[in-house]
Amino acid sequence: MFKKIKRILLGRPLNNSAIESEKYGVLWGLPILSSDAISSVAYAGQEMLLVMIPAIGALAYKQIPIISIAIIGILFLLMLSYRQTIENYPNGGGAFVVSKDNLGIMAGVTAGAALSVDYILTVAVSISSGVEQITSAFIVLKPHSVLIAVVLALLLMLGNLRGIRESSKLFGLPAYAFIFALLSMIVAGFVKVAMGYVPPAPHMPAVAVMQPVTLFLLLKAFSSGCTALTGIEAVSNSVPNFKDPSRKHAKTVLLLLSLIIFVLFLGTSILANIYKVVPGKDGAMLILIAQEIFGHGFMYYFVTATTFIILILAANTAFSGFPMLISVMAKEGYAPRQLSMRGDRLGYDNGIVLLTAVAIILIIIFKANVSSLIGLYAIGVFISFTLSQTGMFMKWYRERGDHWKKKAFVNGLGAIMTTIAVCVIAVTKFRQGAWIVVILIPILIFLILKVKRHYTSVYNQLRIKPEEYEEIDIEKYPYNNRVIVPIDNINKSSVRALKYAKTISNNIIAFNVAINEESASELKEKYARLNINDIPLTVKYSPYRRVVEPLLDFIASEEYNYKKGDMITVILPQFKVEKWWQQILHNNTKFFIEKELLKHKHIVVASIPLQLKHK
Amino acid sequence: MFKKIKRILLGRPLNNSAIESEKYGVLWGLPILSSDAISSVAYAGQEMLLVMIPAIGALAYKQIPIISIAIIGILFLLMLSYRQTIENYPNGGGAFVVSKDNLGIMAGVTAGAALSVDYILTVAVSISSGVEQITSAFIVLKPHSVLIAVVLALLLMLGNLRGIRESSKLFGLPAYAFIFALLSMIVAGFVKVAMGYVPPAPHMPAVAVMQPVTLFLLLKAFSSGCTALTGIEAVSNSVPNFKDPSRKHAKTVLLLLSLIIFVLFLGTSILANIYKVVPGKDGAMLILIAQEIFGHGFMYYFVTATTFIILILAANTAFSGFPMLISVMAKEGYAPRQLSMRGDRLGYDNGIVLLTAVAIILIIIFKANVSSLIGLYAIGVFISFTLSQTGMFMKWYRERGDHWKKKAFVNGLGAIMTTIAVCVIAVTKFRQGAWIVVILIPILIFLILKVKRHYTSVYNQLRIKPEEYEEIDIEKYPYNNRVIVPIDNINKSSVRALKYAKTISNNIIAFNVAINEESASELKEKYARLNINDIPLTVKYSPYRRVVEPLLDFIASEEYNYKKGDMITVILPQFKVEKWWQQILHNNTKFFIEKELLKHKHIVVASIPLQLKHK
Repeated sequence: MFKKIKRILLGRPLNNSAIESEKYGVLWGLPILSSDAISSVAYAGQEMLLVMIPAIGALAYKQIPIISIAIIGILFLLMLSYRQTIENYPNGGGAFVVSKDNLGIMAGVTAGAALSVDYILTVAVSISSGVEQITSAFIVLKPHSVLIAVVLALLLMLGNLRGIRESSKLFGLPAYAFIFALLSMIVAGFVKVAMGYVPPAPHMPAVAVMQPVTLFLLLKAFSSGCTALTGIEAVSNSVPNFKDPSRKHAKTVLLLLSLIIFVLFLGTSILANIYKVVPGKDGAMLILIAQEIFGHGFMYYFVTATTFIILILAANTAFSGFPMLISVMAKEGYAPRQLSMRGDRLGYDNGIVLLTAVAIILIIIFKANVSSLIGLYAIGVFISFTLSQTGMFMKWYRERGDHWKKKAFVNGLGAIMTTIAVCVIAVTKFRQGAWIVVILIPILIFLILKVKRHYTSVYNQLRIKPEEYEEIDIEKYPYNNRVIVPIDNINKSSVRALKYAKTISNNIIAFNVAINEESASELKEKYARLNINDIPLTVKYSPYRRVVEPLLDFIASEEYNYKKGDMITVILPQFKVEKWWQQILHNNTKFFIEKELLKHKHIVVASIPLQLKHK
Repeated sequence: MFKKIKRILLGRPLNNSAIESEKYGVLWGLPILSSDAISSVAYAGQEMLLVMIPAIGALAYKQIPIISIAIIGILFLLMLSYRQTIENYPNGGGAFVVSKDNLGIMAGVTAGAALSVDYILTVAVSISSGVEQITSAFIVLKPHSVLIAVVLALLLMLGNLRGIRESSKLFGLPAYAFIFALLSMIVAGFVKVAMGYVPPAPHMPAVAVMQPVTLFLLLKAFSSGCTALTGIEAVSNSVPNFKDPSRKHAKTVLLLLSLIIFVLFLGTSILANIYKVVPGKDGAMLILIAQEIFGHGFMYYFVTATTFIILILAANTAFSGFPMLISVMAKEGYAPRQLSMRGDRLGYDNGIVLLTAVAIILIIIFKANVSSLIGLYAIGVFISFTLSQTGMFMKWYRERGDHWKKKAFVNGLGAIMTTIAVCVIAVTKFRQGAWIVVILIPILIFLILKVKRHYTSVYNQLRIKPEEYEEIDIEKYPYNNRVIVPIDNINKSSVRALKYAKTISNNIIAFNVAINEESASELKEKYARLNINDIPLTVKYSPYRRVVEPLLDFIASEEYNYKKGDMITVILPQFKVEKWWQQILHNNTKFFIEKELLKHKHIVVASIPLQLKHK
């Protein structure tokens, strides 16, 4: 039944060779990987205004385009840097791989932890912002923001569990629609003012105490604006998802992406300056600008709809990026191994589900409020930017190939700029939530290293060194195979277990734990009637109504005479029933006994299935 | 770690022979088994008032003692009836056993379902009412009612998981204190009025439209009052919990219990009539009466405290009764078998936990509000009363022993009276929640019968008939034992599995599922270096990255040449790690493979444990 539901929701499983056809070129790669970065236009500018308006009122509008230009400077620097990364790391993994290769394991793990946090926040912030857009246009939905956000996260999860290509078709067009909507709005906005339209004076909230334009305030706004840059690393992480030639496609997508962000981010910043909207209670910034320019006409709803959709789909960038990152880490033993396995539809199912679960928790805790979440955001991605750039710089410096100085300069400058940004964000946003991330990342690093150490330890314990191969002789020290068949009744199941036991050993005992002498003698009598002469029956009484302890005590007893090298196989019937609810009625004791027995290295548990019919 | 916590909370496990000393006589049996019945004095009278005051105002007080006398009539009839039941059913199980023996399986199952529902409601109602008492005296606690109720339920669960006798010591004294407190209040109340005290006129809430005293109204109040009788069946269910002579002790307890209820219920009804208190927003009835009589002195707080405690402990009656009932049902296959097993401390742990869980859900849904829960209450227990009485009547009628007519008259009259009560409650309380129970009980009956049918079907499939014993020859049709060792790498674990395989069979193959030819040839090369000539290695490629399917396909293939009678043992290593969190990192695939393989009756899964050290 569960399988059927899974098929309906997720579609038929895909063949391994289908991986190739799931990949994308520039046309679909651009919208899939860019939606995070371009959609941040919807909140980055707004959050800058929200930092400044309460402090300096209408002066804020003047500052916005200036700060925006600084951010766009970093954008282009990152674009150039990451094109160099794509060229040199065609297998994806991004900051994690680059840092690990060039700066060592600690740096790689730090980048991995930082990026993981950031992907999760991308989902939480983008969905919350998307919900904010529609609740600006449709105010009746406002009280249900958290519920809507959670449902959207679950829908995204389902979509991604269905597989990559279908995601691209499904999620590609809206990105283009959003770009078209915002370009139209920017053009229409400029034309309207050029035609002589004078925007109304803003309804500014009263500023309690007018503050001077301090550096700290500008830096705080800058920190909020930096969220516009999150997501551009997604392209370099996803190079293997591109069709061949994958590097060329990825580099083209990164360039186009940067140009689009440049136009949209700067354009909307200038519009905010011209039209002087006040985001907050009245609604989101983009929606208010659209209202000023288009009134409540078709284009107003078109901007609202595409902004909403692009934000929701922005979360999808993380659904491509996070599972890929975590699977790269898992393959190298830095995360639980089940995260490295592709599911039926060739996506990394476990990673997708994990991402969704944590994002939903964040959405619920922060009540789907963008301004609350924004404090946690960006710091993670800027840490990974810094490590990645530094790693690339070290690479050029060490290798000293063609044009190494030019390349090292690009990445070195990138590293310096992003380091400054990390410090600015950590300091200015510390009390707004950055502290959570500052604590969380070291904890994640600790856990990652612990997992890695464990897998390494297991690997070393299991490993056979090349020189040991010749020494191994599986006939040497063969185990002495002894069998115990626990029975609590004489029935077809126990007879079957005894029959099976005969085929694997000739040193067998049947074992019963009796509650009292009455039931013991009844069983002994029945057993005698079976006439099995070569399998003695041992009965023990359990003062604590336990099952496992008497068996383990017996094995340890002189009576059983266990010797080193003996391997004891305990045969346990496992009932197989046809309906799931019947499973509740069986095997509870078997499950418990098996768990306890397997704590002992000289005991093997053989589960012999017994099919029961449903009547 | 989990075990340690369990020990601290629940104490050391008790020996089977300790069961005897866990039993109680009259002195402790009375408070343990009576608290449900006597505590209902705290809400039964009050809920009668709450039905009538909004309809007929002050006229309500006149009716209360009259309805109370009718209810007390039923009480004495039930007492006489149940003494006859105790005499004839010393092994407990109460209505379930009596109905099943005399009226057939359907009646027994119906009684069992009805009683189960009632026990659960006893916990929910008693705890909610207890919380209502203290929040009447300490109004600041009111907003936290639900939380307090849930915590109390959990504390009761813990207390009961510790074992029966300790419960009796812990829970016995407060019952006596409550009886003493209410007797004092009744005496003081009468004396005060006899001395010439005139109670103040009641602050009656305005009655919107004064209604006539209709029969329906009186019956509705009667239905609420019937909740006073719930719990007296607990004594007959718990006969085996008494010290020898258990029947005599149980009958004495039942008699004493009835007398106590008679005095307290009638006494407080008359006090309510004299002092004309208005329960509701101002507080609970008993607390308001105590305030009128004692002011805010010591006795006021003494009544509040003992009423609170007795109500909380009333829930404890269900903690003795429900697990016992459900274990009797489980032993006969009417409930999942794990409910029939005593835990470490000789209580029925699973039943106790189940009861707590469902009661907490009810408390949360109904916000710990007694008036909301009361509609669901009493109908279940009156259905079981009816079935039990009818069953006893049929017994006397069939057996026709000494004085059978007298005995049959008592039980017959009881059956008629309780049948009438069931109808009255179902009709008058239908819209207040009785409909939930009316729907729930048939569903429960359906489930119980389904479970029973399943266990019976399994029993028949497994059973060896007496005449078949002689035919069984475990040497006949011996299985042909073949072994498959799946390996995905050459390491100490796979070598160990191969070694073990050698001891149980000489028809072994090693099996590998490869992702691509590269990994396959690497594995083949390594395997060749092990020089195992009698175990061939078979490699299959998996187009779907699956593990189980290729193995099952291989077993079904001509290449493997499976023949009827072959028993295939698949050996799977199970990693045992030292810390719980490491478990997450292992065995996920093993668990899945085992589950799939065991769906096939000719495949045995042997789990070979491998201890890994923590480094």
